[in-house]
Amino acid sequence: MIRINDNGFIEEIKKDALFICVISSIETTLHYPISGVHKDFIKYTPALDVELVFFGKTLTLKTPPVDSSFSPSPAVITRACVELKNIKNLHIDAGAFIKPKIPYIEIDKKPTGRIEEGKAMENSKLLYNKAYNLANNLDAELLIIGESVPGGTTTALGVLLGLGYDAEGKVSSGSINNPHELKLEIVRKGLKRAKSNNVFDILNAVGDKMMPVAAALAVNFLKRRKPVILAGGTQMAAVLAVIKEIYNDLDKIAIATTEFVINDKNSDLIGLVEQIADIPIYAAKFDFENSRLLGLRKYCEGAVKEGVGAGGVSVYSIANNLNPKRIREFIENNFKKWYGQ
Amino acid sequence: MIRINDNGFIEEIKKDALFICVISSIETTLHYPISGVHKDFIKYTPALDVELVFFGKTLTLKTPPVDSSFSPSPAVITRACVELKNIKNLHIDAGAFIKPKIPYIEIDKKPTGRIEEGKAMENSKLLYNKAYNLANNLDAELLIIGESVPGGTTTALGVLLGLGYDAEGKVSSGSINNPHELKLEIVRKGLKRAKSNNVFDILNAVGDKMMPVAAALAVNFLKRRKPVILAGGTQMAAVLAVIKEIYNDLDKIAIATTEFVINDKNSDLIGLVEQIADIPIYAAKFDFENSRLLGLRKYCEGAVKEGVGAGGVSVYSIANNLNPKRIREFIENNFKKWYGQ
Repeated sequence: MIRINDNGFIEEIKKDALFICVISSIETTLHYPISGVHKDFIKYTPALDVELVFFGKTLTLKTPPVDSSFSPSPAVITRACVELKNIKNLHIDAGAFIKPKIPYIEIDKKPTGRIEEGKAMENSKLLYNKAYNLANNLDAELLIIGESVPGGTTTALGVLLGLGYDAEGKVSSGSINNPHELKLEIVRKGLKRAKSNNVFDILNAVGDKMMPVAAALAVNFLKRRKPVILAGGTQMAAVLAVIKEIYNDLDKIAIATTEFVINDKNSDLIGLVEQIADIPIYAAKFDFENSRLLGLRKYCEGAVKEGVGAGGVSVYSIANNLNPKRIREFIENNFKKWYGQ
Repeated sequence: MIRINDNGFIEEIKKDALFICVISSIETTLHYPISGVHKDFIKYTPALDVELVFFGKTLTLKTPPVDSSFSPSPAVITRACVELKNIKNLHIDAGAFIKPKIPYIEIDKKPTGRIEEGKAMENSKLLYNKAYNLANNLDAELLIIGESVPGGTTTALGVLLGLGYDAEGKVSSGSINNPHELKLEIVRKGLKRAKSNNVFDILNAVGDKMMPVAAALAVNFLKRRKPVILAGGTQMAAVLAVIKEIYNDLDKIAIATTEFVINDKNSDLIGLVEQIADIPIYAAKFDFENSRLLGLRKYCEGAVKEGVGAGGVSVYSIANNLNPKRIREFIENNFKKWYGQ
């Protein structure tokens, strides 16, 4: 495991966890190629991801999503940990195009809108309040928050820029080639329409609906003095930036991601988090170099990298004595069942 | 508090509870006057009930439901306890016509169908499995299960008869006059279409979608050796009957209801439960005789009686040192806020 700015948080997380994955779709992804998800899967990706994590197989389509290079969804990593470590998990719909066929928590049916028009949503404050109320009714010793939002690194860029951070060229991508220029053009157009630089106005313009929901869950647990893992890469840096606008006692929060994000030369998670808050970053190492599956070896070249809470759930599992090799083996052993090949 | 067949269960329930209310609508209620809910509210009742319990006020319409005599929904009792004892609560949609505007768990969008045609649902087994998987991901020391299903005493009658119990004239009603003959006619027609007397075939013919969901939650917690309160009257007797078909280690389950159900001369909860299982029944006493609100005094004459987990949540709260007078006072003090009169 990679430890950056470690403050002992990792020792605190040997507790019963609840993993919550927040899903949303973004209308902009239907018009601009900003997502690394394979285009045939964009509408289905959030539903398929949480079906695999919760249920152990997909229900809406026969297989989980793949990226544009046909590498498997990071949901395979998350599912491996959930099953191997028996991690409780619940999933929140904040506007997926296609709804999952598992029991899920509905918080907003309608997808995130057009980022390039500054019309991501109208209700970020309401979503924050709804999710905060929900969190009052959830109990766990440790909360791990993940996401499945195709196009979500673009909204991360928008929110980080909108809140005044130097984020140009620093957000990650689900594909090997990161379309930084296109993302920047889209969010700059959208940000011109933001009503103010208040966090909820920025979210309404260029955020995605996962963000106020994830931020509210985190703030609620932090206020209850329970540790929170933001499970993801640069999208979770944006969530951290939102949290910081609302609540600034951040001694019980960490970002946990994958080695693929940390090693990525086309993004800079560490440089983003350093600007926002003095919190630790952990990254799981997976030994995918030695996988017999081409799709997993491609992760080492920059495909997919992260998502569906894969990094954070893995860091939690490894800190609780799961050998990372077992994650790889679990994926290899189940790959045919999941993908039918 | 009234204690029937007490086995000490009540001493066990001084624990952190999770209250789950399962909601569904039934198409038959649009065609036959089997529900005590005021007809203008039937489509909205489940949504309004859980909005009040979760959020402290209704969102979909300006006021909570009333029964045909304009008495307030039992959700006012549940909300009083939830707020006074800070009880965690989550709500599951198993096919309400109108969806609540709070975060809720979606398990089946489509309402329960036509009981009189034996077409209540096609998927009771799937609903059971989905809810069982969900329960694997929920944690609490004690589970309290309630319902809001207008017309649900008719489906209770159908399922109890279908499973071979002597239930004629024994199910309760949300109104002062209980239309026993009409209910019986409807379920007898429906039962003729049941494929077999297997519990899932009976549910598919004449049950409602709350039942397999509530039964699965209960069985899951019982298997984990956690106590379960079925919070309701004769509808929960039907759920108990479903549970018994699937799992028969019932030493950690009780039914908890209101004094109004126990005192009702037009139904026989005790006579039903005795046929099913040797478990305790508890009933909360509310001192509504002394209320300044006509709507609450009418409960003492047989209006409403029970629902939305009111009895069970009250029994839990009273066992945890809540004075029942405080429930009445809380309702009286908030009545104007809720009902605007």
